[in-house]
Amino acid sequence: MLRIGQGVDFHLLVEGRDLWLGGVKIPYEKGSLGHSDADVLLHAICDAMLGALALGDIGLHFPNNAPEYKGIDSKVLLQETVDKIWEKGYHVVNIDSTICLEAPKVKPYINHMQLVIASILKIGLDDVSIKATTTETMDAIGRGEGLSASAIVLLQRNMEG
Amino acid sequence: MLRIGQGVDFHLLVEGRDLWLGGVKIPYEKGSLGHSDADVLLHAICDAMLGALALGDIGLHFPNNAPEYKGIDSKVLLQETVDKIWEKGYHVVNIDSTICLEAPKVKPYINHMQLVIASILKIGLDDVSIKATTTETMDAIGRGEGLSASAIVLLQRNMEG
Amino acid sequence: MLRIGQGVDFHLLVEGRDLWLGGVKIPYEKGSLGHSDADVLLHAICDAMLGALALGDIGLHFPNNAPEYKGIDSKVLLQETVDKIWEKGYHVVNIDSTICLEAPKVKPYINHMQLVIASILKIGLDDVSIKATTTETMDAIGRGEGLSASAIVLLQRNMEG
Ligand SMILES: [Zn+2]
Ligand SMILES: [Zn+2]
Ligand SMILES: [Zn+2]
Repeated sequence: MLRIGQGVDFHLLVEGRDLWLGGVKIPYEKGSLGHSDADVLLHAICDAMLGALALGDIGLHFPNNAPEYKGIDSKVLLQETVDKIWEKGYHVVNIDSTICLEAPKVKPYINHMQLVIASILKIGLDDVSIKATTTETMDAIGRGEGLSASAIVLLQRNMEG
Repeated sequence: MLRIGQGVDFHLLVEGRDLWLGGVKIPYEKGSLGHSDADVLLHAICDAMLGALALGDIGLHFPNNAPEYKGIDSKVLLQETVDKIWEKGYHVVNIDSTICLEAPKVKPYINHMQLVIASILKIGLDDVSIKATTTETMDAIGRGEGLSASAIVLLQRNMEG
Repeated sequence: MLRIGQGVDFHLLVEGRDLWLGGVKIPYEKGSLGHSDADVLLHAICDAMLGALALGDIGLHFPNNAPEYKGIDSKVLLQETVDKIWEKGYHVVNIDSTICLEAPKVKPYINHMQLVIASILKIGLDDVSIKATTTETMDAIGRGEGLSASAIVLLQRNMEG
C-alpha cells in the first residue's frame, strides 16, 4: 500500500544566523531565521512524511515555542519524524524536493545533503532528490529576503509481497 | 493502477466575507474573496482530483462567472468532483494538503475539516491530511492580504486484486 | 516499482519575447525571459521527471549559460529528459501540472499543449493534465510581471507483471 505526502516551508534570511540546508551548513553572509536551526529543506521533508500518514505537521510535533527545540539541529527532527513513519509500518520509497532561493548557489552541497538525508532515512542516495531554482528575482525570495523548500514523498507499507 | 494529482489555489482576504476553509467556517475579521464561498483548501483538493484523471480544472467545471455557482458551498463542488472520480472507476487512497496563511491559527479547526472532507470522499480520517504554515511574513500572504492552499492526491482504480 | 517527482519553475514576462507554454506559442504582448525559449511548463515537467529518479535538475543537465541551449526549443529538452527516464527503465504513468499566471487566458491552448507533451512522452492524452490558475492579483505574478508552473509525475519501472 502506497501513500503520498507533500510539504512546503519558508524562512527569512537574516544576518547573524547560520544557513543550514538539508542538514548541511553552507557558508553565506546570511542564515535562516527560526526557532530551530531553521533548515527549510528538512522541514519540508518532515512535513511531507507526516502528511503522507496524516500525522499532523511539523508545528504540531515540534512547536516553535517549545524550549527543547530552541536552536535544535533539524536532523534530530528528521530522525524523530522517520521514527514515527517506521512505527506505523511504512518506509520511504523516494523523496523529491526543490529549494527555492536567489543566493547562494547550493549545487556544490547537494550531494552532501543527499548523503545526510539518505543516511537518516536509511534509503539509497538516489532515493533522495534535491533540486534548486530561483524565482527569477520575483518577490521576497527573489530579493534574497528569504527562501522556501517544497518536497513530496512516496511511502510504502512494509512487507508487501 | 495508481494516478497522482496536484492542486493549488489562491484567494484574497477581505472584510465583509466569511472565512471558509476545508468546509468549515472559521471566525475571523476577514474572509476569502471569490465567486463561490472561496474555500481555498477545497478548491485545491478538487483541482488535485480532477488533475489526477486529466479532467480539466475547477475553473472549467465550475466557471467563476456562472450564476449557479455564485456563493456556492464548495462542499457541493467537492461532492460533484468526487462523483466524477467515482464514475471513472477510481477512489481516493490519500490526500495531503497545506494551507498557507498568516492568520488566524487554523489548528483548532483541522480535525473538523478532516471530518468534513473524509465524509464527502468516503475515506478514513487518516486518509486526509491538512497541514498549515505561514510564509514568515513574506509577500502578500505574509501581510495577511490573501491565502493559498496546495494539495496532492493519490487515486487507485477500483477492484484491483 | 513506482517513483514520484515534482518540479517548479519561474520566468519573468517581458516585451520582445515569445510566450512558449507547454510547447505551444501563445499570442501575447509579452513573453517569457530566459536562456532557452523559457517554457515554464515544460521546464517544470522536466524537473519533475529528473527528480523522480534523482538525476539532478534542469539547471544541471541544460545549463543556462551553455551556448548550445541558447534560444533552444524546450521540446528538445523534454525529449532529452524522457530519453534519460527510458534509459533507466522507467515510463511515465501520469503527469499533473498547474500554470500560474494572470494573463493571457491559456484555456484555448491546453489541448494543444497536452498533444505536444503526450506525443513526446509517448503516453495518452489523458495521462497529461494541465491546469491554470491566477494568484488573484497577488505579488509579481498577480501583477503580470512573471509566471510559474508546477508539475508532479508518477513513474513506473518497465515490465512489472
Ligand atoms: Zn521551517
Ligand atoms: Zn478558489
Ligand atoms: Zn525555466
